[in-house]
Amino acid sequence: MCNLDQDRKLLTETIQRLHQRGWCEGTGGNFSVVISKSPLRLLMAPSGIDKGKVLANELIEVNEEGAVVQGGGQASAETMMHLMLAKQANAGCILHTHSLAGTLLSKHHNGEFSIRIEGWEMMKGLKGIDTHESAINMPIIKNNQNIHQLSNNAKQIAREAPYGILVEGHGLYSWGKDITEAKRHVEIHEFLLELTWHERLLAKTIQ
Amino acid sequence: MCNLDQDRKLLTETIQRLHQRGWCEGTGGNFSVVISKSPLRLLMAPSGIDKGKVLANELIEVNEEGAVVQGGGQASAETMMHLMLAKQANAGCILHTHSLAGTLLSKHHNGEFSIRIEGWEMMKGLKGIDTHESAINMPIIKNNQNIHQLSNNAKQIAREAPYGILVEGHGLYSWGKDITEAKRHVEIHEFLLELTWHERLLAKTIQ
Amino acid sequence: MCNLDQDRKLLTETIQRLHQRGWCEGTGGNFSVVISKSPLRLLMAPSGIDKGKVLANELIEVNEEGAVVQGGGQASAETMMHLMLAKQANAGCILHTHSLAGTLLSKHHNGEFSIRIEGWEMMKGLKGIDTHESAINMPIIKNNQNIHQLSNNAKQIAREAPYGILVEGHGLYSWGKDITEAKRHVEIHEFLLELTWHERLLAKTIQ
Amino acid sequence: MCNLDQDRKLLTETIQRLHQRGWCEGTGGNFSVVISKSPLRLLMAPSGIDKGKVLANELIEVNEEGAVVQGGGQASAETMMHLMLAKQANAGCILHTHSLAGTLLSKHHNGEFSIRIEGWEMMKGLKGIDTHESAINMPIIKNNQNIHQLSNNAKQIAREAPYGILVEGHGLYSWGKDITEAKRHVEIHEFLLELTWHERLLAKTIQ
Repeated sequence: MCNLDQDRKLLTETIQRLHQRGWCEGTGGNFSVVISKSPLRLLMAPSGIDKGKVLANELIEVNEEGAVVQGGGQASAETMMHLMLAKQANAGCILHTHSLAGTLLSKHHNGEFSIRIEGWEMMKGLKGIDTHESAINMPIIKNNQNIHQLSNNAKQIAREAPYGILVEGHGLYSWGKDITEAKRHVEIHEFLLELTWHERLLAKTIQ
Repeated sequence: MCNLDQDRKLLTETIQRLHQRGWCEGTGGNFSVVISKSPLRLLMAPSGIDKGKVLANELIEVNEEGAVVQGGGQASAETMMHLMLAKQANAGCILHTHSLAGTLLSKHHNGEFSIRIEGWEMMKGLKGIDTHESAINMPIIKNNQNIHQLSNNAKQIAREAPYGILVEGHGLYSWGKDITEAKRHVEIHEFLLELTWHERLLAKTIQ
Repeated sequence: MCNLDQDRKLLTETIQRLHQRGWCEGTGGNFSVVISKSPLRLLMAPSGIDKGKVLANELIEVNEEGAVVQGGGQASAETMMHLMLAKQANAGCILHTHSLAGTLLSKHHNGEFSIRIEGWEMMKGLKGIDTHESAINMPIIKNNQNIHQLSNNAKQIAREAPYGILVEGHGLYSWGKDITEAKRHVEIHEFLLELTWHERLLAKTIQ
Repeated sequence: MCNLDQDRKLLTETIQRLHQRGWCEGTGGNFSVVISKSPLRLLMAPSGIDKGKVLANELIEVNEEGAVVQGGGQASAETMMHLMLAKQANAGCILHTHSLAGTLLSKHHNGEFSIRIEGWEMMKGLKGIDTHESAINMPIIKNNQNIHQLSNNAKQIAREAPYGILVEGHGLYSWGKDITEAKRHVEIHEFLLELTWHERLLAKTIQ
């Protein structure tokens, strides 16, 4: 099986797994893998489709302007965020989810526009972290229906982010060098966000 | 496969998916698709059946008086609500669920008989909404064992509702032009209701 | 397929379904069906077994003293509660679960030893209830490792209970005239208990 | 099938079941079975692998220094904890999970470094407990990236623990004499921890 076929298979399996978790309700969420760096090409799910039903041969290929160059269906407007992350954060795979915990915390940030996470062993699941005695700040960027502005605003933040960014009231972008790393990162991010949200509730009970 | 066979197959798959989510415990919930507008005919699950076990050939056809015109089993009393929504809201498919979040919020409304939802990207999953800078009011109607009164009381509300109505202490009616749209809407509604209920808990901890 | 084979098949499917819900962790929970009233005989899962793995041919038959009369393995001490419910409450099938919500509420009862549940449409899933304008009191009996005392203490309560009893710090006994009704009842009971527990949390946020 | 093949099959099934529960997100968690006591040999999952995808023939064998003696892939640094528990607590199988409830409670201990659990029937799922009128103290040890220090610090505690230890901000180690007992214990531990965390929330609402 050639690389592209493997990417199609592995990305589809990953999408189905994330869908089962309830992280892309409705037709929400989108998921891409970089199949060429120069020129930049993404393999991704088409827009407006139930992510629980996407087949490997339904994935589309998109160029660096976000135009579909192979396959049927339309590219999501959010393709611009995927392309920006591939360029700015050197991401090889980008997984964009809408979980309950991530969506909640993205909006209820007390004006701080970031979530501090520290002291958890599971942070070691993020590349480059080798001790629980670490802290990350998950940035939150303002939502914007002008997707070019949204991705421009996130450029600098993306370069410094811990492989994840929240968009306010919207959800999580998580990434890694390849599908395997991005999948590990999104599971770790979502676990840490869920810990954080439960921690806030629990904090009230143990003071 | 003719349209009716496709509807049977797709509605059955949809019912099983919603059942797996825990949205129709016991023999709760009901689900219908409009197979003819004039005369009005619904294809729907029979009453009093475990929705996790309904087969495509067990779905019944019901006329606009709510009488079974094809298939075995009985039509639910709530068929009247389905017929009303088909007529008043021009619904092509109606999905009636009993989720925890929807049921809870339907009763704990502080006398406001509606739930305001705003600022979430996922609202864009509802037809006609194209920005997170929107707000919807999900109406809550009083429950009534006289199903004719219940559906009469909901007529005006149904025409203006964001493809969803809560019945107090009871659950959610969600609809769309076809099965695909109604399934997307019910997933979005349930996600927004779950966000809302968690938001109320979280609000206490971040003030 | 004779009745007994059908009972074995249907009870096994029901046990697996309840296990998937997380209602019988460890080797917790037990499940029985009355296969003869005179003399009283129960078909049930053997004690100390992972309920996710029980096969139809591993179910045992037990007499009214709680002795195994057919099949391998041992009868649970809790068989006495099942036998009591078959006699006092005329139960044809008894499903004993250990859910989070049921177990929590069974202990945190503020000394009232019952849980009042009212105003929910889903109560109509319990036999004999035909309007949401009803109220039930789910009794809670004190736990007791002397299972004869435990079941004796519950006799009167069982006759008046809404097809369900909680045992303090322990879990739920739910029953019906047959497997189908008991399964519907346990799903309704668990849903109502989960509503009640979430309602208590939510109540703090909307005062 | 020889014992080793059975152990490979049963451990793999157990890992997949625990993974489905969300108790080893990312590549978190690890799981071992003692296949020889003298010299001490563990069969376990290799490090850095998605635990939802581990196959029986991918399990590795590790000696008492933690070196891989059979199979591909690397042994987790946490192998030292597994070896320590095999020796100090006479464990035949060790299951190390990262659940939400366990991870949360391991960090929010109010400086007590243990969690008192009492009054639950489900405690009887732990070996040696035969009444709900029991209490256990689940110890919490400080996390330490020096795994030799971590396991040394836990030696005495392991000998007295109720078949389970929490590591602060990290997760749960649960064990038993064999895979079946360890799986029962981890399900009971996780259930009791989830009860405890929900109890703390609920306690605020019923005072």
